[in-house]
Amino acid sequence: MDFRAVALPVGRLMVLLSLFMLVPAAADLMVGNPDWVGFAVSALIVGCFGSVATLAFLEKDHRLGIRETLVLVNGAWLAFSLAGALPLYLSGLDLSLTDAVFEAASGLTTTGATVLTGLDHLPPGILLWRSLLQWVGGIGIVVLGIWLLPGLRVGGSQLFAIESSETSSKPYGRIEPFLIRLLLLYGGLTVTCMVLYRIAGMTGFQALNHALTTVSSGGFSTSDQSMGQFDNLAIFWIAIVFMLLSGFPFLFMIRVVEWRDFRDHEQVVFFVGLAAAASLAAFVVLHLGATDTPFRELTLSVFHVVSIITTTGYAASDYLQWGAFATALFFLVTFLGGCSGSTSGGFKAFRMLVLIHLIRSLVSGMCRPHRIAEPYFAGKRLSPNVIEGVLIFALLYVVTFALFALFYAAAGLDVETALSASITALANVGPGVGSTIGPSGTFQSLPDVVKWLLAFQMILGRLEIVSGIIILTPDFWQER
Amino acid sequence: MDFRAVALPVGRLMVLLSLFMLVPAAADLMVGNPDWVGFAVSALIVGCFGSVATLAFLEKDHRLGIRETLVLVNGAWLAFSLAGALPLYLSGLDLSLTDAVFEAASGLTTTGATVLTGLDHLPPGILLWRSLLQWVGGIGIVVLGIWLLPGLRVGGSQLFAIESSETSSKPYGRIEPFLIRLLLLYGGLTVTCMVLYRIAGMTGFQALNHALTTVSSGGFSTSDQSMGQFDNLAIFWIAIVFMLLSGFPFLFMIRVVEWRDFRDHEQVVFFVGLAAAASLAAFVVLHLGATDTPFRELTLSVFHVVSIITTTGYAASDYLQWGAFATALFFLVTFLGGCSGSTSGGFKAFRMLVLIHLIRSLVSGMCRPHRIAEPYFAGKRLSPNVIEGVLIFALLYVVTFALFALFYAAAGLDVETALSASITALANVGPGVGSTIGPSGTFQSLPDVVKWLLAFQMILGRLEIVSGIIILTPDFWQER
Repeated sequence: MDFRAVALPVGRLMVLLSLFMLVPAAADLMVGNPDWVGFAVSALIVGCFGSVATLAFLEKDHRLGIRETLVLVNGAWLAFSLAGALPLYLSGLDLSLTDAVFEAASGLTTTGATVLTGLDHLPPGILLWRSLLQWVGGIGIVVLGIWLLPGLRVGGSQLFAIESSETSSKPYGRIEPFLIRLLLLYGGLTVTCMVLYRIAGMTGFQALNHALTTVSSGGFSTSDQSMGQFDNLAIFWIAIVFMLLSGFPFLFMIRVVEWRDFRDHEQVVFFVGLAAAASLAAFVVLHLGATDTPFRELTLSVFHVVSIITTTGYAASDYLQWGAFATALFFLVTFLGGCSGSTSGGFKAFRMLVLIHLIRSLVSGMCRPHRIAEPYFAGKRLSPNVIEGVLIFALLYVVTFALFALFYAAAGLDVETALSASITALANVGPGVGSTIGPSGTFQSLPDVVKWLLAFQMILGRLEIVSGIIILTPDFWQER
Repeated sequence: MDFRAVALPVGRLMVLLSLFMLVPAAADLMVGNPDWVGFAVSALIVGCFGSVATLAFLEKDHRLGIRETLVLVNGAWLAFSLAGALPLYLSGLDLSLTDAVFEAASGLTTTGATVLTGLDHLPPGILLWRSLLQWVGGIGIVVLGIWLLPGLRVGGSQLFAIESSETSSKPYGRIEPFLIRLLLLYGGLTVTCMVLYRIAGMTGFQALNHALTTVSSGGFSTSDQSMGQFDNLAIFWIAIVFMLLSGFPFLFMIRVVEWRDFRDHEQVVFFVGLAAAASLAAFVVLHLGATDTPFRELTLSVFHVVSIITTTGYAASDYLQWGAFATALFFLVTFLGGCSGSTSGGFKAFRMLVLIHLIRSLVSGMCRPHRIAEPYFAGKRLSPNVIEGVLIFALLYVVTFALFALFYAAAGLDVETALSASITALANVGPGVGSTIGPSGTFQSLPDVVKWLLAFQMILGRLEIVSGIIILTPDFWQER
């Protein structure tokens, strides 16, 4: 295990993060809020740490093997969560260390669960920092999903190790030109979203914050009422479109923009179809209770389903008031998630598709034992490795969800809250069901131990479980 | 599809079932209860149907292929549920058709969920019939688990297609000599259990009924308080032992009794270990609340965990009063189940073991990509077929659970009740969590549509999902 190979990239990323801290520092300085000192000090500390690590290990001969990469992704999320928590801890909010780390981890993993109340009256620095954490986290997740996870063969994601030679998992040969495209797309989406929000009626500051947390499928807002602060259907539909885009595979979007090819459309079509079906179910339920105009009901149904299925987590109203079916529906939709290589979390659409293809081939194999029925996906035969990867991911997903729910119940949460806290953290969604952590509640009142476990579970969800769990096994640390 | 090949065995089994109906008829006749007429008429109707089917198709040249076998097992459970419901419908209880079918399906699948209250004051015929349905169902499930499922390769159960030649899935060559051994074991367990219950303090009638529903991991009782009617630790420990035995593989028990070999002990050890671990957790929780003597607390903890994990479903007290952790624990234990080839339902211990071995081999494969790490079970390499079967079963189990829970929530059940009703039916356990269907409630108040769906789900659980779902696919019915 070559820890120096790990320290170098982590150090570089820390320097980058410290630069981002200057943005909220500037914002607070402009309005004369003393929190700017906290941001500046944090930037200094994180920047120094990062520079030292970068300079100390700046040699060319360190190679990132599989194990180093695994330590790197785990280490980076942990280090970023702590570094991101620093300015929150140093701010005038008087947060406990637990709350600061929870909020930072929830931001960086683009979960969007919050322990803060009175958001409407917070200084701009804090609000901007929360939004920036999600935006930075979002791009980190896309890079992780496109380069690292397929190379590590996590959860069947080797399906997306494209440009098919077995040794290279990089879709564009060298990383730099592609990274620029990716940043252009991500930045472009953010700016477009922000402009549209502004036109539709948000203030400039609101538009910036919500654009940052929409395209990253994060879900932090500038108000305790989340998107419910705007009684504006245009804003909801803009959010719907950009939340959906945040759940699309970014490689797919780049290829579509460059008008090259439309591989992966199967996953996108399935994802949109699933969102449409769940929205329809929610709409029917809401319409049967008929309290509003049909178009408003439709908007709210689509908005909330898309918000949950893309793992964004905005709320525009308390959808748990729509009855037991809606509650159960939103609880189950929390498990699903968007497409691979997007900023969204959850189980992911391609895994559902692989499972559907697998079951169909199994059924026809059972009925006709003498005919060979092999599962296909996107025109390619699914290899046993991919199938096994997807199935194991499914299993770990369910077991992790259940185990953490059990911890939360042991810590005193009621069963419904425990179950939904566990899945909303693991799938990086944000709100749960129930009065405590539902769309109109916060995570503030939970015991500290639960908050730490939730933060851990959010990171685990971001690492697609496998790459997080594997470094906890003794096998991993044993020298070859 | 040769329906005549299906009608013949179903007819024969119907005749057998009609003979069993004479037992409660006799019991009611002895105490002068008019329900005996209902039992006698039912015996006549079911017996006639069965005889006609048997005689009409009594030719030797019908062959049970895979598809015929699948239609047979589905048809047999459905026909038995309707036939078993007949005397309940005709009795003086004034049950609706829905309730009669629910109770019969719950009995035959050894689930043990009930819609009846005032059990303590029911005539003996009804009580005996409920117990007999579970006892008959229990032996049916063992036969299904030992012969049919491995042959159909359902959910990885081909692992237990023993005496290894690929073409024969019969563990003892011809079926008859083995069936006699199996009946001797099952009958022997029942009689021993009954005698011990009687010695420990039950009346003869109570001992008979509870023995029938213990060895079948059924869980019907003669009182609304279930086993709570006896304030007797000896009875609880007898129940614990025989419930555990009902969760053991019956082939394993036969081999142990005949002192031949101890294959499959890995599964049994794991199952007992799991029960012990969950019992310990429950005991700790109960003891921290310290309301009783430690031995009584231990007894109640072990009793309830074993009752749920073996999918029996007896209750001796309302364990949901033990707090949120206990509720979550019992909710999750409901998923597990006993060993393959036992009378218990649920996910099954061997599948958990296969998954554990698989994950371990995967982890070491990820850490050391150049070393081959293949998963083993009971000394044999796990074939990809078995692994795929187990993983698909796991997936269908979770998806079926979630979908039905969604139906129940749509029908108006609260989320907790909907989730636990779905899993308690699918795993054939009996009680759920929550005040309605918990250990101190009944399924009486649920809407009719929910009762029908639950009955369907119980049968689906008994057919290990795959063999139930497959006949619903268009592929299955398409002629080759």
